[in-house]
Amino acid sequence: MEKILVKSSTNAYTISIGESLRLQIKQFLNKEYSSILVVTDEHVAALYLKDILENLPAYRVFQSIVPAGEKSKNLQTFYQLQTEAIEFGLDRESLIIALGGGVVGDLAGFVAATYMRGIDYIQIPTTILAHDSSVGGKVAINHEFGKNLIGNFYPPEAVIYDVDTLHSLSEREVRSGYAELIKEALIADKNFFNTLLMVDIYNVSNHGLQKHLKQGIRIKAAIVEADERESGVRKYLNLGHTLGHALEAELGYGTLTHGEAVAIGLLFSIHVSEALYSIKLPFDELVQWFKTNKYPIIGTDLNNLALISKMKSDKKALKSKIQMVLLEDVAKPVTRELEDTEIEIYLTSFERRLMVQ
Amino acid sequence: MEKILVKSSTNAYTISIGESLRLQIKQFLNKEYSSILVVTDEHVAALYLKDILENLPAYRVFQSIVPAGEKSKNLQTFYQLQTEAIEFGLDRESLIIALGGGVVGDLAGFVAATYMRGIDYIQIPTTILAHDSSVGGKVAINHEFGKNLIGNFYPPEAVIYDVDTLHSLSEREVRSGYAELIKEALIADKNFFNTLLMVDIYNVSNHGLQKHLKQGIRIKAAIVEADERESGVRKYLNLGHTLGHALEAELGYGTLTHGEAVAIGLLFSIHVSEALYSIKLPFDELVQWFKTNKYPIIGTDLNNLALISKMKSDKKALKSKIQMVLLEDVAKPVTRELEDTEIEIYLTSFERRLMVQ
Repeated sequence: MEKILVKSSTNAYTISIGESLRLQIKQFLNKEYSSILVVTDEHVAALYLKDILENLPAYRVFQSIVPAGEKSKNLQTFYQLQTEAIEFGLDRESLIIALGGGVVGDLAGFVAATYMRGIDYIQIPTTILAHDSSVGGKVAINHEFGKNLIGNFYPPEAVIYDVDTLHSLSEREVRSGYAELIKEALIADKNFFNTLLMVDIYNVSNHGLQKHLKQGIRIKAAIVEADERESGVRKYLNLGHTLGHALEAELGYGTLTHGEAVAIGLLFSIHVSEALYSIKLPFDELVQWFKTNKYPIIGTDLNNLALISKMKSDKKALKSKIQMVLLEDVAKPVTRELEDTEIEIYLTSFERRLMVQ
Repeated sequence: MEKILVKSSTNAYTISIGESLRLQIKQFLNKEYSSILVVTDEHVAALYLKDILENLPAYRVFQSIVPAGEKSKNLQTFYQLQTEAIEFGLDRESLIIALGGGVVGDLAGFVAATYMRGIDYIQIPTTILAHDSSVGGKVAINHEFGKNLIGNFYPPEAVIYDVDTLHSLSEREVRSGYAELIKEALIADKNFFNTLLMVDIYNVSNHGLQKHLKQGIRIKAAIVEADERESGVRKYLNLGHTLGHALEAELGYGTLTHGEAVAIGLLFSIHVSEALYSIKLPFDELVQWFKTNKYPIIGTDLNNLALISKMKSDKKALKSKIQMVLLEDVAKPVTRELEDTEIEIYLTSFERRLMVQ
């Protein structure tokens, strides 16, 4: 087991990464809690809920199971969970455990952040993708106009990453998770990026996967520690997300996974960076790697004006202009405001470029 | 104008108390904001919204007007305000101004706390009651099962208390506000309590009102500074609120104002304190003062079991037991857990006691 410490403005918490951790859940509770609510989704519940419950025998433990998928990150499910928490009698000394992927983590985290003005919660991510969302205290639900528009910065008490749970992931989920690892590498670590470009993500060893996760989490943890509330460097973590979020919204959530959409967004950021800064970045290599690893790299039939409109309602939009994270080089991110007209031109040339790849 | 500084864990903000401050709103903005959304209710809008808008000429300013009253502090209005904020194009560099009483302050504050994970907001309280809720960063909406169950601790950037706006208050609103001043005095300042017991609240001078407000705010500010997240002394501010909140919920919001309900709750806390600690507190004097000032002191026809059930879903309930703030003396508050059966006995004797007053 490896431990990474993250200091936030209000607490410090440990990310523990290792095998069989879900069976040792008790050792990660730093306090006496009056009761515990495990929030999970129907898929994860079938696989791992019993493991958690059986290893918390001395507690008043309750469970809330939400439908799997992005659609649960909405106002209604949020309110439903608040209602259940009240009905179970959770009080200010209670704990919420978020057992699942990013949807469950964001949703249950936001419930914890707002239930009676905030109670403790622990993240138990069960996907590769959630290595990203479970660290840094961003919690949220979606608004019908955009993702994560309603939320808080609210750090967890602990993140417990049991890599055993990653064996049950589908290929789509593996793809989705590795896109965020690629992003972290692009932001901060050229060697890690070059390492990843040699990986066949469906045949990576247990040891290799743990190594990649740890490296990704280390990058993420260092950034959120330096800028918890996203006034500076934390913005870099949005690399690839301006177009990524817009694609998810425009195509309908679930058409592309989050990571698949981010993969296209990463390529777009690189494309824009090359044009704006007259530099050469590993665009072709990354397209090739994405294709080899079965990412759906779509560049046609997109409605550019609709995408631009979605990008502008993104949280990163400042004064209604689109703010993108770009790269002056691998591991040299910058932020930049762009006019709608610029974005439109780049989208068009991007789509043309993808067609000939 | 008087200024009181409050330090929170994440910022420091000034409470300014004086005349005509709503006309000088610009001087209280410490930053360049990309846009401003003024949230207010229909009553306050008719009286003071124009003053605010006219004094922010250089800004992109928008307005959202909600129905007056507690019923607006719900999930639907919260979401509606989020939607309007998105439609107006508010971004992370925008400001929300909460212009109104406690309902508007709590609601707009919670929108600010959660919009894009938190943007700045300023409180402009327009009631006496809101001297309490506007200081300390508690923001929330109600759940159908209880008041303020969904919220955050999220300090404002400033509190601007224009006492001119208090001239338009009804007698009910004056009563409601003075109950919280009595509470603050009971918690922390015997002299202030004795001063208030001589006040005819409907004929208090402008100077006198300002003095009382400043004293109440000083007490509140000192407490929230010492314990922002209510793990210790801040709980004392709930004096009178365990029964008060239950009464509001049980009778239906609006039947009693918040302060009227708290007034009864204060008497109940004193009643229980006298019995538990075998002491004499100014119960009779306070009943007399409440009656002189036209507070509806009702003690009959209450459903005790329903009230106890409501008290248990209160945020202060710990492990499903009722936690009350009691007094060992005026200005000597303590917290204590009580069994349901104890509460029931005290409620019965309290009602009997009020009947003979």
